[in-house]
Amino acid sequence: MANAKRPGEFELIRRYFAPLAAGTPAALGLGDDAAILSPRAGQDLVVTADALVAGIHFLPDDPPDQIARKMLRVNLSDLAAKGATPLGYLMTCAFDGRVDEPWLASFCAGLAADQTAFGIGLLGGDTVATPGPLTLSVTAMGEVPAGRALRRNAAQTGDLVFVSGTLGDSALGLKRLRGKLAALSAEEGIFLIDRYRLPQPRLKLGRALMEAGLAKAALDISDGLLADLGHIGEQSNLAAKIESARLPLSPAAARALQDDPVLIAEIAAGGDDYELLFTAPSSAQAPIAALGQRLDLRLTPIGRMIESAGSHPGAVRLLDEKGREIALERRGWQHF
Amino acid sequence: MANAKRPGEFELIRRYFAPLAAGTPAALGLGDDAAILSPRAGQDLVVTADALVAGIHFLPDDPPDQIARKMLRVNLSDLAAKGATPLGYLMTCAFDGRVDEPWLASFCAGLAADQTAFGIGLLGGDTVATPGPLTLSVTAMGEVPAGRALRRNAAQTGDLVFVSGTLGDSALGLKRLRGKLAALSAEEGIFLIDRYRLPQPRLKLGRALMEAGLAKAALDISDGLLADLGHIGEQSNLAAKIESARLPLSPAAARALQDDPVLIAEIAAGGDDYELLFTAPSSAQAPIAALGQRLDLRLTPIGRMIESAGSHPGAVRLLDEKGREIALERRGWQHF
Repeated sequence: MANAKRPGEFELIRRYFAPLAAGTPAALGLGDDAAILSPRAGQDLVVTADALVAGIHFLPDDPPDQIARKMLRVNLSDLAAKGATPLGYLMTCAFDGRVDEPWLASFCAGLAADQTAFGIGLLGGDTVATPGPLTLSVTAMGEVPAGRALRRNAAQTGDLVFVSGTLGDSALGLKRLRGKLAALSAEEGIFLIDRYRLPQPRLKLGRALMEAGLAKAALDISDGLLADLGHIGEQSNLAAKIESARLPLSPAAARALQDDPVLIAEIAAGGDDYELLFTAPSSAQAPIAALGQRLDLRLTPIGRMIESAGSHPGAVRLLDEKGREIALERRGWQHF
Repeated sequence: MANAKRPGEFELIRRYFAPLAAGTPAALGLGDDAAILSPRAGQDLVVTADALVAGIHFLPDDPPDQIARKMLRVNLSDLAAKGATPLGYLMTCAFDGRVDEPWLASFCAGLAADQTAFGIGLLGGDTVATPGPLTLSVTAMGEVPAGRALRRNAAQTGDLVFVSGTLGDSALGLKRLRGKLAALSAEEGIFLIDRYRLPQPRLKLGRALMEAGLAKAALDISDGLLADLGHIGEQSNLAAKIESARLPLSPAAARALQDDPVLIAEIAAGGDDYELLFTAPSSAQAPIAALGQRLDLRLTPIGRMIESAGSHPGAVRLLDEKGREIALERRGWQHF
């Protein structure tokens, strides 16, 4: 499908994508049928894939460089949750008619920036045309010492539940982008929108937890705290309880919640946080606090894993300051 | 995006996709953030990705099981071209509103059939909804002894150019599907359409060429013979000449060409053959003939790699029986 606004397939690869693979010998300059990686001895390979559709996972008018960076970071966040070090990624792009050369230049500049930031390179992929909407898919690969990857299924009864950073900023940022939360200051709004547009994959934290053997179970929060903690519970055959007063909030999110307590739903069940959620025995609390200091990253205990007797595996109870359960209509984000 | 015709994301994974991952421990039951592979010592990892859009790469009304199988086979064909043995695949699906449970059941049955046929399993992926056309992306992974993968860039002057199987069947099959080639018999039509819908990845051939060190350069023909031989030429800094009378044809393709000599364009420049194209020194001709016998697969020498002086790297001349160049309007398929 020819498109006057952009070059043909091979020229597109040469001009825009091959430079993104230039530092990655395994990509063979994108001039071959496939990439060829030589895995290091003693390392497992961690592989994850995501699809993004314009109008669903990002707004069609979002800045292309930010679409690119968020796409990479969401996948790097999955690698972080396993304690893996990123190696590279493959990308397939179905470009719609709106994708022109300025769009491509910005998109690839975003990829290049985050490739540098995270030490990864483009390994391969495919570019096709679509009547719409723009659809992107990324497969990210990382490595982790053999047998050491963090898993969802290893939580134990009595484990403390920790979360990195702050919760709810991204969901509130999307609300602000849509014209809500008008009472917040411009600065608070920008902070929240940035958190929505540009997640910070917690790679250093994931690696440190893996190396120190501090975490039992781990994942990254993409569906929302309650839903994702439910995934740990399901996989570990446990339930969990969370104290809402302990949820770590940014100043902007704290102010929004103060203005409108109903926003606890966005904070506990909104998606796209991309913080790490992990469980650890009480004995690990001091070393985890020290790790947080070393990484300059909040690591907050917010609840505990408990037996699922009396409820079901994966049940998560959110409790107020008096220990009463807070009922939420929506428990998390279903992408589908 | 809820859809009444099919279950939600988690139920969809449980019911349709998790069974496809059941035999693949690396997939962690699709219950985690990522797959964890343990590469075997001494093996390189070969990775390739493709995107497919309904209405462009397949017809929206194509049988779902055949869409699934062609999608896998196209990627397995890339692995075959490297001499790799397939390990597994990740798949992202952007499902449109037409995808209902019967469609999903057929699609997954097709995946299951080819997983068994080729000894691979589903490693992971993502499922999202799209307002636009059904869009699929696959990342396939294979292994090959370290440093032994076949490449595009290793052709040498004087190498013979070989092709497996027969050429043009798929392009002619698509023509037949669109109501052309009416003079062919029903049986001939079905043969060609089958070749379009269900390519045969030449995995045994690729592996044997790699193991025996018989081939210099190799790739699989997806863009069309001339374009893909051009890719070998570009990467090897050579040109090539091909004798049209030597192109291996199925009886159905031979009859179509006899009826209409203009169809040489479909045969030499039509895409989707998924046969292997490789170069080898003249001294390898006898062992390659023996290999073809052993695999019960036609391996036909169709031309030679030549110096690119006087033309440009990647130039490919198609010659008639009197050595005159046959001019074609379109040299190959651009997917974009």
